[in-house]
Amino acid sequence: MTDVVGIATMFALDLRLSYFGKHTLFRWPFGPLLRKTGGIPLKPLIARGLTMGDEMHQRNVACSSLLMRQLAPALAQTAGSSEELTACLAFIAGNDQFFLNVAMAMGKALTDPARDIAASSVVTAMSRNGTDFGIRVAATGDRWFTAPVEMPAGIYFPGFSERDANPDIGDSAIVETVGLGGFAMAAAPAVVGYVGAGRASQAAAFTRAMSEITVGANPAWTIPAMDFAGVPTGIDVRLVVETGVAPTINTGIAHREPGVGQVGAGVVKAPLKCFEDALIAFAGTMGVA
Amino acid sequence: MTDVVGIATMFALDLRLSYFGKHTLFRWPFGPLLRKTGGIPLKPLIARGLTMGDEMHQRNVACSSLLMRQLAPALAQTAGSSEELTACLAFIAGNDQFFLNVAMAMGKALTDPARDIAASSVVTAMSRNGTDFGIRVAATGDRWFTAPVEMPAGIYFPGFSERDANPDIGDSAIVETVGLGGFAMAAAPAVVGYVGAGRASQAAAFTRAMSEITVGANPAWTIPAMDFAGVPTGIDVRLVVETGVAPTINTGIAHREPGVGQVGAGVVKAPLKCFEDALIAFAGTMGVA
Repeated sequence: MTDVVGIATMFALDLRLSYFGKHTLFRWPFGPLLRKTGGIPLKPLIARGLTMGDEMHQRNVACSSLLMRQLAPALAQTAGSSEELTACLAFIAGNDQFFLNVAMAMGKALTDPARDIAASSVVTAMSRNGTDFGIRVAATGDRWFTAPVEMPAGIYFPGFSERDANPDIGDSAIVETVGLGGFAMAAAPAVVGYVGAGRASQAAAFTRAMSEITVGANPAWTIPAMDFAGVPTGIDVRLVVETGVAPTINTGIAHREPGVGQVGAGVVKAPLKCFEDALIAFAGTMGVA
Repeated sequence: MTDVVGIATMFALDLRLSYFGKHTLFRWPFGPLLRKTGGIPLKPLIARGLTMGDEMHQRNVACSSLLMRQLAPALAQTAGSSEELTACLAFIAGNDQFFLNVAMAMGKALTDPARDIAASSVVTAMSRNGTDFGIRVAATGDRWFTAPVEMPAGIYFPGFSERDANPDIGDSAIVETVGLGGFAMAAAPAVVGYVGAGRASQAAAFTRAMSEITVGANPAWTIPAMDFAGVPTGIDVRLVVETGVAPTINTGIAHREPGVGQVGAGVVKAPLKCFEDALIAFAGTMGVA
């Protein structure tokens, strides 16, 4: 699994840096550079991030900073020129959310091996396309169970309001699928205000609610303020349907017109119908539907 | 005050980096470089660090990382060679406690202007030399009030024990003097285990106790998990003597033989006698002793 995650990191970084490279900033190939470093282990990096107030969806300032510490010496070793290096370091340093793309790639790398496991009712993906919310479940492989997506409830950047918002959109909910984001809210009291979800001291309530619908706590990713309890991990469609507790997703709110970008941040609930449909299909694989 | 802090940063960084520069690593002058950047504002940096689990004495991983993000592009712009830059970035990146020296210089810059203020019973310095603990108070200027120093209670690195420890030593308690370290424990639940002070969920109790002996909360440095209450700041010798609550200091434990260095980390109490003597002298300045 560590290998899978390491490779995911490399591709995510290569993609993110090369994209900008093609347009303005960089010319040197990051993939080979990252391979040369032996890869950057993400599980311990995220473990540290959870002790530093990140939940890895709407707050990535710690992991973005820790990742830069690991990257900077390697970048300095391989830069084509000091101008190029300065621009690259300034770009990485200038974005607190830099790590989110890496976390998403890691999430996919962690969950994909859990597909096609017979008799497992654990969710392997959650995603939204602006119209529908979809989930996948281990026992039912590549099949998507979808329902109309909800509107996030949150806080808008100055000059924007609900009228500008698109219904929930994006593939970043893969972060919640592995126990981070809204599931790790207790690690990130400072994010509660940012997503408009109440008082900072209420952060733990979100994480506790998610522990009702997950199969266990991740012993490698722990939350100091909960006396190092692990993040609730492995959403079980049976528990979601039984409790009626929907997964909580800390999300950015996108403008409904293309090109404007993010206009706020908030919390959105996964629609329960996805989980009900998935449970019926899951029962079918068990020969009981 | 911001100017004072900015200048302190520059000198602290210059000192720290130049020291190693003279010996092995670096040749280029950091003072002018830092002046060129216009200085690095430390108050907002520390405000972020407090939302990221640092208390700035035994845990500086966030501020060390955030500072490196601000320094790296400027370093890249002025490096003499890529080898030198790589060594410098690797050195800064390799030490989670890098920021402590900067925090100490900032602490001194914050408290020195509060010396020689008539009728103020606020502590302007706390320090230890391995034998005595000393404090200074605003109304009594440069005078030190001393008492025998205590032994820290804490956790030892593998291979070391109480038998190796020196009594409490060092000038880093200036960090507690400005409301950080043991005073900001609630911001840093992960550090509680490191200093052997109990369960992470008990972190807030330390901060609440320190609010009993301080004149106010710092509105610029807030703690998310306490719903953004400010760190307790301005130790009042009258309150210390009245309550019998001694300032809590998160400290490294040094080996009693020179050259060995740090052998553990723990919590130490400031001896009450310093505060009692200071209160009598303070009363003298008010004409009531």
